[in-house]
Amino acid sequence: MTTTVGVIGGGQLARMMIPAAINLGLDYRVLAENEGSSAKLATTVVGDYTDIQTVLDFAAGCDVITFDHEHVPSPVLDALLAAGISVHPGPHALEFAQDKIRMRERLAELGVPVPGWTRAVTPADVEEFLTEWGGRAVAKTPRGGYDGKGVRVITSAAEIADWLGDLAEGQSILLEEFVEFRRELSQMIARRPSGDTALWPVVESVQVDGVCKEVISPAPHSQGKIADMTGDIATTIANGLDVTGVMAVELFETTDDRILVNELAMRPHNSGHWSQDGSLTSQFEQHLRAVLDLPLGSSAMVADWAVMSNILGGPSSGDLDTATAQTLGEYPEAKLHLYGKTPRPGRKIGHVNVIGDDLDRAVAAARGATAFFQD
Amino acid sequence: MTTTVGVIGGGQLARMMIPAAINLGLDYRVLAENEGSSAKLATTVVGDYTDIQTVLDFAAGCDVITFDHEHVPSPVLDALLAAGISVHPGPHALEFAQDKIRMRERLAELGVPVPGWTRAVTPADVEEFLTEWGGRAVAKTPRGGYDGKGVRVITSAAEIADWLGDLAEGQSILLEEFVEFRRELSQMIARRPSGDTALWPVVESVQVDGVCKEVISPAPHSQGKIADMTGDIATTIANGLDVTGVMAVELFETTDDRILVNELAMRPHNSGHWSQDGSLTSQFEQHLRAVLDLPLGSSAMVADWAVMSNILGGPSSGDLDTATAQTLGEYPEAKLHLYGKTPRPGRKIGHVNVIGDDLDRAVAAARGATAFFQD
Repeated sequence: MTTTVGVIGGGQLARMMIPAAINLGLDYRVLAENEGSSAKLATTVVGDYTDIQTVLDFAAGCDVITFDHEHVPSPVLDALLAAGISVHPGPHALEFAQDKIRMRERLAELGVPVPGWTRAVTPADVEEFLTEWGGRAVAKTPRGGYDGKGVRVITSAAEIADWLGDLAEGQSILLEEFVEFRRELSQMIARRPSGDTALWPVVESVQVDGVCKEVISPAPHSQGKIADMTGDIATTIANGLDVTGVMAVELFETTDDRILVNELAMRPHNSGHWSQDGSLTSQFEQHLRAVLDLPLGSSAMVADWAVMSNILGGPSSGDLDTATAQTLGEYPEAKLHLYGKTPRPGRKIGHVNVIGDDLDRAVAAARGATAFFQD
Repeated sequence: MTTTVGVIGGGQLARMMIPAAINLGLDYRVLAENEGSSAKLATTVVGDYTDIQTVLDFAAGCDVITFDHEHVPSPVLDALLAAGISVHPGPHALEFAQDKIRMRERLAELGVPVPGWTRAVTPADVEEFLTEWGGRAVAKTPRGGYDGKGVRVITSAAEIADWLGDLAEGQSILLEEFVEFRRELSQMIARRPSGDTALWPVVESVQVDGVCKEVISPAPHSQGKIADMTGDIATTIANGLDVTGVMAVELFETTDDRILVNELAMRPHNSGHWSQDGSLTSQFEQHLRAVLDLPLGSSAMVADWAVMSNILGGPSSGDLDTATAQTLGEYPEAKLHLYGKTPRPGRKIGHVNVIGDDLDRAVAAARGATAFFQD
């Protein structure tokens, strides 16, 4: 009997798991939010992932359920478990990815280094934290933020008056130390239910306006002791939270030489896209192996360097066919990955990976190969 | 508008084009012979590819039609062209892949080295050729043979009495010199309609009972002058026959130091599967780029060596899940590619690729990783 994987969410992560599912001989199904999603090729149900019956119907016959995103509500996850369906990562792990305050609390218990933080409910809470941390802080809504949404750098409580005003009983805003960082790192890890883990090299990621623009593997300035630390941190978190599947740990390397955990993502992540072409086992294949409790693959790199550059829709980037032909023509070594999305300014519609033994050349090629899409 | 590729045939080649189509942002559709084919994920029509209306209906809305196999009849291909649909490779090229006698004639015109050959209709024709070529010959039905089917080594006309008896008016059997070869090589090439070509390294393939078992890239004993020759031969054939897409030229390196063309395949080919993990551009991606007349990708290797080992169903190879888990566990560096087929003894159900800088280790790993499926 063929093993069947069901994925909730039809975005580009679900799309990019398709090749891995094909290679491993898996049947692969997607519950997508909309018709015409990035993962439409494998979509068997279009429906609402917050509706328990929709999700149970989709999951019938699947050997495991996993995710394109972390937004499936706990009652839906619990209903899957109650129906005897394997869910990875499980709700007990996902709750920490869904709630940044719960995550900060749990990481503190695990002894993992995080930025200074507090919960704020009132303007007075905010002002107190600002006074303590030099007059500047990062405010985050605990749920639902991504790609810079739900995150504000503030110097006064007035700047999040709307968020504070909308808080329901028991809710709070997360305030964090404004971290002066030298660079941002990401440590990807995979973990099987039976406990085995596999680490990829720690990578450096460059964010522009809160959106990841470029990733270099391995992180050029952060090997040796720093890589040992990031690997230990990711392993501690994966084991401590019983994470199954692939997890990204986004980190700051601070100007005062600390390594601090910024965010977690319990799924394949933009900072791991380089692995599609730069590692023996891509994060998408590794995720499927991990959630099925299959042995993990080698995460060794196939070249000295891998560079990933995101394609963000530009002001006039409507004609994907022309941009594709130009890119393939100018950069025969670049690996293009498009998401089947209609371009809009600033929207992530794909990425390019370039591998090689010369970092400067790889960076130049990866950047150049995205330019035709962004003009 | 999204570019749409239609593939006729639902076998493993159509299956393995899916990842490339996803990466390039293409819409991808398959006309499969049966429900549950290897390419079922992308199948939009199940029907008879010899029926003109079925194929025309399938092709409506496709920007190009290409193939999983070479068996689509000429009248169907001509009807597609008459309907204004782009077909690559075109019927004028495919006819040489479909008829081995026409192919031999055309290669002779192009000055490409081939084994000694003739057409035989009567037992006397056969005996005459046997006398001329040392008492032994290879007899082939001109159409429909593959993986050792439709091929016999003979020492007398009686051994193909059935074939001769079944010949219709105008048909003949192909007789070829029995070539004493040192090794078998394959030269893969891609060619765009606009004429650009790209060569992968010439590879060595090991056949067992007429079925490809193992491929090593680059061919360990056949680089330098021999690789120059095989590249020239493939380029001459691709240009001479106006081949579009990917073509495999299977060759003999003979004991008396000749390079002779054995067979052509105008599609991705088993001898190119290594490129999925061993080349910057896989044969499947290159085929899609070529048939869409997009610029070709770099065919450079990503490691010193790539070894492909086919998985042939064994006497008790029913439990793919167990074999998969064992293989992934023992060989974390091996890249598994399953075809979604039910195992039967001798049936090709997948392959394994291993890349590395040590050929002996790569060969051992590739062979070892197939063993669990074949016990």
